[in-house]
Amino acid sequence: MANSASGESIIGRVVKIVSAFDDRHPAMSVAELGRRTGLPVTTTYRLVNDLLLERLLEREPGGDIHIGTRMWELASRGSKMLGLREAALPFMEDVQAVVQHSTTLGILDSDEVLYIERLGSDRTIVDITKIAGRLPVHATSSGLVLLAHSPAAYQDAFLARPLTKFTETTLTEPAALRRHLAEIRQRGFAAMPGVIVPESSGIAVPVFGPDNTIRAALSVVVPRNEENAPARVPVLMAAARGISRALGLARRAEGDAPAKPLKALFAVHR
Amino acid sequence: MANSASGESIIGRVVKIVSAFDDRHPAMSVAELGRRTGLPVTTTYRLVNDLLLERLLEREPGGDIHIGTRMWELASRGSKMLGLREAALPFMEDVQAVVQHSTTLGILDSDEVLYIERLGSDRTIVDITKIAGRLPVHATSSGLVLLAHSPAAYQDAFLARPLTKFTETTLTEPAALRRHLAEIRQRGFAAMPGVIVPESSGIAVPVFGPDNTIRAALSVVVPRNEENAPARVPVLMAAARGISRALGLARRAEGDAPAKPLKALFAVHR
Repeated sequence: MANSASGESIIGRVVKIVSAFDDRHPAMSVAELGRRTGLPVTTTYRLVNDLLLERLLEREPGGDIHIGTRMWELASRGSKMLGLREAALPFMEDVQAVVQHSTTLGILDSDEVLYIERLGSDRTIVDITKIAGRLPVHATSSGLVLLAHSPAAYQDAFLARPLTKFTETTLTEPAALRRHLAEIRQRGFAAMPGVIVPESSGIAVPVFGPDNTIRAALSVVVPRNEENAPARVPVLMAAARGISRALGLARRAEGDAPAKPLKALFAVHR
Repeated sequence: MANSASGESIIGRVVKIVSAFDDRHPAMSVAELGRRTGLPVTTTYRLVNDLLLERLLEREPGGDIHIGTRMWELASRGSKMLGLREAALPFMEDVQAVVQHSTTLGILDSDEVLYIERLGSDRTIVDITKIAGRLPVHATSSGLVLLAHSPAAYQDAFLARPLTKFTETTLTEPAALRRHLAEIRQRGFAAMPGVIVPESSGIAVPVFGPDNTIRAALSVVVPRNEENAPARVPVLMAAARGISRALGLARRAEGDAPAKPLKALFAVHR
């Protein structure tokens, strides 16, 4: 009943419709939506109508459609990511205040880095991270940190695939990547000069959950020619420890008490 | 085809399923999901299966279901709210650093205040705001600011309804509320001592978009006995102006350049 003649579920078609929107295409007509999704016109109209009725999509005065507030609300309210983000945000603010460059929090999702939070910087720098945006694992400092601390079986499967070489410093050869992952585990951070865009360097550290499994990567994006990049590492490490502690506290507290920044950074700077 | 025997669309039933999750119920079994939604068991199982296939829901090792990362990603990536939130966040950080109490950003959605961002505070205070949480318009400082700057026809319709009296200071009588809304417009802020919980006071100011229509309310929650609450108002007002300016800049810039905090707060404190 829920499937079309092509066997695709209605939910699958709804995902196609919702996926057509992004920060460069925040609103469009139903006809354009049909073109972008490749769905039949009548299907698109009917599904858009159902989605409008439930306020998952909204119609602008000019007639264009955009993602509804209610969709964000439903997806956020029960999301486990909100807890991670709330635990991390105070520490990310501290990092951003000290480092003064974009600070991001990324997780491993479907073999890519998904950025769940990003605090912007005033300075001009090439930084392609976006909230709810994705980047390749092997070409970002966050991705390499996440991969370095993933189970061995996952690493093996990941490294067995062909990997894109974005710049001259992107590692794509499995043996070289394995050595690099071991280094990252040993040093406790990844510092990648220009692996995805030549102008910027990413520095990332792991954030562990209370069960000592990797939960996220905390990262800053700095200009490539900035030679004091290694000096950023202790600040990131201290903040990552603070986030882990806040995650543990949040779990023990059995509620939504705000995660407290435990002034971890001050210990580093004193 | 997309409707059940009861005439409810599949999308309507999916909304029921997703709505069953919140911060107190982040994960549950399919059977519990069926009970909470009131949907037939077979329908629940089939829809959960489709949602798992699309990763809109995820299954935990123990078998319980929770909201999938992909749902948050899809809802966030194209959301217009992300722009408002990104423009507001640097100014909210400034307010929180100065006021040291919970700072929230709320919008009017379906006749309720929907909080789209909240920066927590270290201090212990009764604060019932949550990200993606809702509170009544007439019993929050944010709601009253949003209502005060809404079109007259909307205000009339809102005030025609019966309103709940949460505490002895909650205004529920239309004429009294109208006078209060006029005061809020004239003073430029709402300061509500204990209108929803007796222990706390909310102070809120309007955030206008580049077209001068109300976009959001910026608010802090302070203890009710804190007598210097009016001193918080200039900080909030300056931050709200900064957010409006950032929204205008973001619109003109035609891209995702980070909204810059224009050091508005320093002007107030000097």
